[in-house]
Amino acid sequence: MSNTFGKIFKLTSFGESHGLAIGGVIDGCPAGIDINFEFIQQQLDRRRPGQSIITTSRDEKDKVEFLSGIFEGKTLGTPIGFIIKNQNQKSNDYIDIKTTFRPSHADFSYQKKYGIRDYRGGGRSSARETACRVVAGAIAQQLLSLKGVSIKAYVSQVKDIKVDKSYLDLDLSKIDDNIVRCPDLNIAKDMISLINKVRNDGDSLGGKITGVAINVPPGWGEPIFDKLHADLAKAMLSINAVKGFSYGLNDIDISECLGSEVNDIIENLDGKTETNNSGGIQGGISNGNDIYFNVVFKPVATIMKKQQSVNNNGEVIIIEPKGRHDPCVVPRAVPIVESMTALVLVDHYLRSKTNRI
Amino acid sequence: MSNTFGKIFKLTSFGESHGLAIGGVIDGCPAGIDINFEFIQQQLDRRRPGQSIITTSRDEKDKVEFLSGIFEGKTLGTPIGFIIKNQNQKSNDYIDIKTTFRPSHADFSYQKKYGIRDYRGGGRSSARETACRVVAGAIAQQLLSLKGVSIKAYVSQVKDIKVDKSYLDLDLSKIDDNIVRCPDLNIAKDMISLINKVRNDGDSLGGKITGVAINVPPGWGEPIFDKLHADLAKAMLSINAVKGFSYGLNDIDISECLGSEVNDIIENLDGKTETNNSGGIQGGISNGNDIYFNVVFKPVATIMKKQQSVNNNGEVIIIEPKGRHDPCVVPRAVPIVESMTALVLVDHYLRSKTNRI
Amino acid sequence: MSNTFGKIFKLTSFGESHGLAIGGVIDGCPAGIDINFEFIQQQLDRRRPGQSIITTSRDEKDKVEFLSGIFEGKTLGTPIGFIIKNQNQKSNDYIDIKTTFRPSHADFSYQKKYGIRDYRGGGRSSARETACRVVAGAIAQQLLSLKGVSIKAYVSQVKDIKVDKSYLDLDLSKIDDNIVRCPDLNIAKDMISLINKVRNDGDSLGGKITGVAINVPPGWGEPIFDKLHADLAKAMLSINAVKGFSYGLNDIDISECLGSEVNDIIENLDGKTETNNSGGIQGGISNGNDIYFNVVFKPVATIMKKQQSVNNNGEVIIIEPKGRHDPCVVPRAVPIVESMTALVLVDHYLRSKTNRI
Amino acid sequence: MSNTFGKIFKLTSFGESHGLAIGGVIDGCPAGIDINFEFIQQQLDRRRPGQSIITTSRDEKDKVEFLSGIFEGKTLGTPIGFIIKNQNQKSNDYIDIKTTFRPSHADFSYQKKYGIRDYRGGGRSSARETACRVVAGAIAQQLLSLKGVSIKAYVSQVKDIKVDKSYLDLDLSKIDDNIVRCPDLNIAKDMISLINKVRNDGDSLGGKITGVAINVPPGWGEPIFDKLHADLAKAMLSINAVKGFSYGLNDIDISECLGSEVNDIIENLDGKTETNNSGGIQGGISNGNDIYFNVVFKPVATIMKKQQSVNNNGEVIIIEPKGRHDPCVVPRAVPIVESMTALVLVDHYLRSKTNRI
Repeated sequence: MSNTFGKIFKLTSFGESHGLAIGGVIDGCPAGIDINFEFIQQQLDRRRPGQSIITTSRDEKDKVEFLSGIFEGKTLGTPIGFIIKNQNQKSNDYIDIKTTFRPSHADFSYQKKYGIRDYRGGGRSSARETACRVVAGAIAQQLLSLKGVSIKAYVSQVKDIKVDKSYLDLDLSKIDDNIVRCPDLNIAKDMISLINKVRNDGDSLGGKITGVAINVPPGWGEPIFDKLHADLAKAMLSINAVKGFSYGLNDIDISECLGSEVNDIIENLDGKTETNNSGGIQGGISNGNDIYFNVVFKPVATIMKKQQSVNNNGEVIIIEPKGRHDPCVVPRAVPIVESMTALVLVDHYLRSKTNRI
Repeated sequence: MSNTFGKIFKLTSFGESHGLAIGGVIDGCPAGIDINFEFIQQQLDRRRPGQSIITTSRDEKDKVEFLSGIFEGKTLGTPIGFIIKNQNQKSNDYIDIKTTFRPSHADFSYQKKYGIRDYRGGGRSSARETACRVVAGAIAQQLLSLKGVSIKAYVSQVKDIKVDKSYLDLDLSKIDDNIVRCPDLNIAKDMISLINKVRNDGDSLGGKITGVAINVPPGWGEPIFDKLHADLAKAMLSINAVKGFSYGLNDIDISECLGSEVNDIIENLDGKTETNNSGGIQGGISNGNDIYFNVVFKPVATIMKKQQSVNNNGEVIIIEPKGRHDPCVVPRAVPIVESMTALVLVDHYLRSKTNRI
Repeated sequence: MSNTFGKIFKLTSFGESHGLAIGGVIDGCPAGIDINFEFIQQQLDRRRPGQSIITTSRDEKDKVEFLSGIFEGKTLGTPIGFIIKNQNQKSNDYIDIKTTFRPSHADFSYQKKYGIRDYRGGGRSSARETACRVVAGAIAQQLLSLKGVSIKAYVSQVKDIKVDKSYLDLDLSKIDDNIVRCPDLNIAKDMISLINKVRNDGDSLGGKITGVAINVPPGWGEPIFDKLHADLAKAMLSINAVKGFSYGLNDIDISECLGSEVNDIIENLDGKTETNNSGGIQGGISNGNDIYFNVVFKPVATIMKKQQSVNNNGEVIIIEPKGRHDPCVVPRAVPIVESMTALVLVDHYLRSKTNRI
Repeated sequence: MSNTFGKIFKLTSFGESHGLAIGGVIDGCPAGIDINFEFIQQQLDRRRPGQSIITTSRDEKDKVEFLSGIFEGKTLGTPIGFIIKNQNQKSNDYIDIKTTFRPSHADFSYQKKYGIRDYRGGGRSSARETACRVVAGAIAQQLLSLKGVSIKAYVSQVKDIKVDKSYLDLDLSKIDDNIVRCPDLNIAKDMISLINKVRNDGDSLGGKITGVAINVPPGWGEPIFDKLHADLAKAMLSINAVKGFSYGLNDIDISECLGSEVNDIIENLDGKTETNNSGGIQGGISNGNDIYFNVVFKPVATIMKKQQSVNNNGEVIIIEPKGRHDPCVVPRAVPIVESMTALVLVDHYLRSKTNRI
């Protein structure tokens, strides 16, 4: 198990989907920061199940309780411990899977690795743990905003419905104007219709999220292994259901271009470039331009259809649909992508402070 | 700087492109392993410049010298130190860039981060350091082969010329039958022609590499943050010129599918699935099926064309083409992708040994 | 801040003395281990304040609540989150020190480091956090006992009252037969008398703890930096009020001996030696003999006497005695020393599993 | 194996005593620092064998070659790779121990751990590797001196000949005025006589080194686990032949004092205290006063006397004295203690930069 993320600003996370609570410890948060608790809860609310008609009906309030590390509203520099109690669990929904392995779920691989698993709601493999990432990420975002950095993410694709424009041509203030979190309102409507249709079919669908970080100063990123984009890639791929990551030029496939077509011409000593096909990072270090990237989500494995599998005796069985169903997790993943971006950036900000004496 | 990769089996790398030597230290390699030095050199030869007519003419032998950690042909369990001396440097080719920042290179971001840089050949930002990864990766591959695991990578795309078939429908024993390292010999010919044409134009092109790991047992990967595919993503994105990574289903875009179309039905308690759209990993843990993934390379930034930039006084200048030119680094990146895959897998193999008492 | 201990079996700790709760996350605990909750609580009870007449009257139950990582009594391999709620805080006792820096306490150094501090009860610098170490250590002890390893610690000195015998000549089953945790009952009586006398004087006293680990197999310890005794030293020095550590021969000062007097003669291929002046470790690796060491505690800084100091305006002030007072923390530190020993050993046990393929 | 020391400023070390070379990689060294190569070599010369009549006659020049990370005399921020070639090895002296385990050496524990060992000169367990620590430590000292911090160490005891004074009452500029590195010249003479006598007897002796760090600003140290003194303890115990560490008050045993006798009264907001029994650290964080500590060395295991042992068939054998002999390594360990102190302090300096935004 590896449940710690970051080298200086570190989140250590714990908790199973149907245990008493999930929670975490943030170690390495600088001291003296005023914490905006409302913002943290807002981000949790954007992630929580039951928030809109297109998500699962599992309804959890996801109220975070801070136990340490904050005194009179300010960070102490000491570890910030927090918990989110689990509620509205319907563990009985999962009795059937105690002895079976659901297709494209982690039941089998966890069982093989550990010889034991908490089968209720997927246990530790459930995306429920991402709530802890959002708590830490919301604090990280507050630190970054003190340095002028802002982070935005939005749904840029649901199944084959895509936003063709660059983030530069969208109004990112509109991301939360609709429940699918796509800033193009017409495309958002189509996405919502499709999700509803697929939900009624008992099926699931994937999509893509575009993430953007604005005002990152040059100099963040630690080659050769902790390149800024490599850490972003790892951060994104660590989110449940994510299958791919790319950064920079993404309306066309950069691998199909010539060097002369995509090289970014530097205009001045601030590092601003005419184009930004590089996505704001050169050699693994931010160069002062916007950082942007794409995250690919598969359709989630839970569907309301009969599926064949095997049980723990190796017998072929049919799994009947049961429980609650989230046809498309991509809209709920928007604050998670923002949070993981913030965790990577704040860690690299702090690390960059040690590059010179 | 972060020049160590891995948590148990760790490579620490050093060296600038035009310094005296590059090298590394492998710490955490298990004791008692017979080392096949020829295999290490073979992998270095597959990566080295000047190996064929489609690569740069910089001709370096890349002979590795082991200084410690191996005794009478076997690993001691102690750190394996090694160096590769730099040769055939033409540092004078780089005098011009002492005061200028090349487009889409890391000159600017390194200068901003550190306030100083070794401008000769890109210094530390040069892909020259990947030779050290190949040394360590070749040792990792030998360990993995003792566990039955084999790793293959091949060029599956050069610019818009693509191998449309799955790796399952290709003869992977033919990868090195041609200089572009594409196992489909007809497509390989087209790729070589295209590279030669683009070289003559003084331009560069990108492409894709497909990586495959066969016989990985279930249970490798450390959720929630060090998921096996998350570590693979980071490993690949840490390679120079890589812009994207995805794993599993890759002839079509998994984000455009329905859950019912891509869920993998488990057939038996070995974990073998009817389809393998998941790419051999569930919940971040290997499930016993083949692991496969795609790595996206941009066209390298060095081209033999005039380009505009700024110098360190902020003046707009024209950079004249000079030095040697590698139009398409993707074929040389094949052993690097194999090596980084091996480093991730061997580290997770060793980590998995601690999952149970 | 660095609140994580261990490389494979890792404890991450959080909590201030007068916050809502303290707690921790144990990551890397192997799966499938039956947990003996009673033993954990027993160890907490041996550490808790108010346990006997010679300790502080702060009376806290220190009941641990496990939130994750354990399912149907067994470890899951996932992170074990736990909390201990703070009770019986008398924060008002500390209002006075909001603006003053107590002598030989960490008030000043925390304030300088972070620019802010939770002054109530010393905040994070209080030894209250050691309860979390005991929770994790008690689980570590259970794992170790499955490998046959047992750990014992006892008070071998209080001020100038010393146990002169080696641990080999004591009956370690008697450690808890008295409240000072010294297995020599006569000496224990003297220690208790002295502690009571000093308590009445409003003063404090230090002492020493001897730790012993029996049945550690050869091969644990990771040179050259994570030598087994180096990690033990760090573990012990990280405990509040500890000033020194030594291992091996400790009835006389090994630095005053000749090599010919203290070299340990190996008797057989189990590694058993005639003498064990080396303390069971050679070259940083256990050699199969008993591991034993001494830990030196200063008298705690809180005394019930007037003391001069400065306030945060730099004015000289007199601090009046107030609050509760623990004249000698050494007996309560016995389970902490055992716990830190267990954390070091279990981590090295797991690490040693990766030394060979 | 764990051959990396530090979290930000990291030394990774490699090399066996009789291999081709030892060496290391310093990663995380800030950029733009002018390197004084002479100082590095001076420190190496103070450590090297054969430097005076009281050390071993193994005569090695220990010339360090830097391979990367330094450009035109300044650090680049990139990893600093270096090697020291091994010379004057008399591997034949060790043929006899190929199949035997020397008393109080690491031959047995290495063999048990790894199933293989480089028996020549102790291989990796030889103190030869400490030369690499001196290289990195000398660079760390240069960084610290830019922050005003200076480090001194001296021999304060050889067997039972002791310097009774505090470091404050000694003239530390005289440390290198004699070959035993004791600033009290009369005591130094006695120490040298004793070492010569014991050498002639073929025996060995231990001693103590006192280390002092002056001008460390308040705020360095990362509780609760990476307390400054805990990291110093680990650093010292990782040095060959070290058996103990204590910090602060050391002319008498602090565990025998009352709190009222040893509490340090703070005098002003710089943190200066009337006494400094705490040794410059409170709660694991420097408080602005001098840091000082004691390091205990056992007599080294190699003696020129017949000793009993077992061979790898379990047969009792007699080991005849052979090879070269260093009767007292303590004087040569002075620069090693300084170096490890510097590595700890520079790492904590860099870490402290991230405590506030």
